[in-house]
Amino acid sequence: MTERPNRQILLVERPRGKLEESQFKLIDSTIGDPGPGELLVRTVLLSIDPANRAWMQGRTYREQLGAGEVMAGGALCEVVAANGAPIAPGSIVQCEPGWQEYAVVPANRILPVAVRGALSHHMSVLGITGLTAYHGMLDVGRPKKGETVVVSAAAGATGSVAGQIARIIGARVVGVTGSDDKNRLIERDLSFDAAVNHRSDKLREDLAAACPNGIDVYFDNVGGRVLEAVLPLMRTHGRIVCCGAVSQYDSATPAPGPAGVPGQLIVKRLRMEGFLVSDYIGEWAEAQGQLAAWVAAGELAVLEDIVEGLESAPRALIGILAGDNVGKRMVRVAPDPT
Amino acid sequence: MTERPNRQILLVERPRGKLEESQFKLIDSTIGDPGPGELLVRTVLLSIDPANRAWMQGRTYREQLGAGEVMAGGALCEVVAANGAPIAPGSIVQCEPGWQEYAVVPANRILPVAVRGALSHHMSVLGITGLTAYHGMLDVGRPKKGETVVVSAAAGATGSVAGQIARIIGARVVGVTGSDDKNRLIERDLSFDAAVNHRSDKLREDLAAACPNGIDVYFDNVGGRVLEAVLPLMRTHGRIVCCGAVSQYDSATPAPGPAGVPGQLIVKRLRMEGFLVSDYIGEWAEAQGQLAAWVAAGELAVLEDIVEGLESAPRALIGILAGDNVGKRMVRVAPDPT
Repeated sequence: MTERPNRQILLVERPRGKLEESQFKLIDSTIGDPGPGELLVRTVLLSIDPANRAWMQGRTYREQLGAGEVMAGGALCEVVAANGAPIAPGSIVQCEPGWQEYAVVPANRILPVAVRGALSHHMSVLGITGLTAYHGMLDVGRPKKGETVVVSAAAGATGSVAGQIARIIGARVVGVTGSDDKNRLIERDLSFDAAVNHRSDKLREDLAAACPNGIDVYFDNVGGRVLEAVLPLMRTHGRIVCCGAVSQYDSATPAPGPAGVPGQLIVKRLRMEGFLVSDYIGEWAEAQGQLAAWVAAGELAVLEDIVEGLESAPRALIGILAGDNVGKRMVRVAPDPT
Repeated sequence: MTERPNRQILLVERPRGKLEESQFKLIDSTIGDPGPGELLVRTVLLSIDPANRAWMQGRTYREQLGAGEVMAGGALCEVVAANGAPIAPGSIVQCEPGWQEYAVVPANRILPVAVRGALSHHMSVLGITGLTAYHGMLDVGRPKKGETVVVSAAAGATGSVAGQIARIIGARVVGVTGSDDKNRLIERDLSFDAAVNHRSDKLREDLAAACPNGIDVYFDNVGGRVLEAVLPLMRTHGRIVCCGAVSQYDSATPAPGPAGVPGQLIVKRLRMEGFLVSDYIGEWAEAQGQLAAWVAAGELAVLEDIVEGLESAPRALIGILAGDNVGKRMVRVAPDPT
């Protein structure tokens, strides 16, 4: 029995209001060998996502996070040892070790990663957020050439890919972000057709001006007042892809829903549909092939936002909830072994 | 040039809050001959629908109603004279004469009705509300045998048919109405499996008790707090059919939307979709054939609520907004000519 030194970040209490650094604690601990059917993995890149905060609010597609637990989170990890599982040490896997340097995970809860190109791409454009953008836009939103597509959190990990996919298939793409700097970036580097700042006090008018023909597809990462502003601009038979509701995650009390539900849905025969990327797992390999091809062809720019050190994770999460990231945020916990 | 005496009900002012009888006025007037391409029709059965009130609030799928106009509304009418249109006097047509005894309507804005059985059935089960129930339930909601379907305004014109269709195809059907009397009626006469009173102060618990397996399809006629109570009970991949939002029509200020939008849609991958029956016009004949067959077989009970006299129309509309009807409400303006 080997005991290795480990470092872990615990969620010491559930936030009542906004998430704060004091609700986390970094501790030194040790970790033992994997049991039968388990792997010992080393965390390389830890994924930081708004959903991490939503897991603290209550039951979602997973159990609510509890006080005193190692903070949950997905990561790209290197296999250190496998107990009875046919996977070689040194392999890269996608799994959920939580916020710690080493973890023991069940072998049936990992996905092997065939690394091609930069490892970080397997967390951004080829990872969960890239796949979320791909399936959400193409399978749920289904924009057609010439249609107007609006994407919120458009400089974020999912939004930046979702908007570019819509542009690649020939839609007019309008991004919504929370800063003029981000808007310049998505117009210049990602070739969005227009951009709107959601902090504007005339958001609805700005959106209307950017979408003179109305909106056919809204890829919603934020919910709240952006969703409310979009609803009256939707065109008949428009589609709203419910991907995230980041505006509602960092709070104890959920806001009322957007005015116009269900009225606008009826009058304009809108379809508003939620999805989880896990529903499409059988199609991920094909999606990754297409995404990688777009990247290789220079059609899809990859935005990444890598923060150094496990101890930075709480600040990185709190920041992403306030929108301080550009592209896919991750925390580097160990050097890239590839 | 013949001038016939006519009686009309005007909307004399748009309601600011709740609709009142004083906002209507019955006047005597005259009506002339139809021009080229027009028909003179006599109103037989006038359709009273919550949507009549929604038309006063603003632009919907039609222009907002204005003060001083003849109140708008659909009807089954008898053709009195046709000027250049190939339709025989005495024919029954579905059209929109408004609230008046006689009207001149464009020949290209009528639908001929091949009357079979009771004329009133062409306004209830075979009319717009029956077709709305049919297409909304089967084409938008798509319940499967064994699934749980909840229908609000379940004793109303659309809800009573929608719920029975779901029951016919083998779903477990739970109705929501605003009275215990209506609940007894839908359970006893329409064979709903269970019924919930939305005036209960523990609506959510009552719904949960009536739907122990959760809700697969919610056919929503009301919006508001019933929709809000249903959302947390929806099952993964559930569908919400946005048919109406009656709870929001009789008011000047729209309420906030239901909490849980878009959060519940994402977590449970729900589809929430609005529709208008007019989108399915090419399939109406087939739908009417099926509905008539179910009625003939005794599988589909028809609930009608016929009020006598044009002058009763304002009170009939105000009443339907408060839920005082059972089944399809209509106003008999002239004796049945068939």
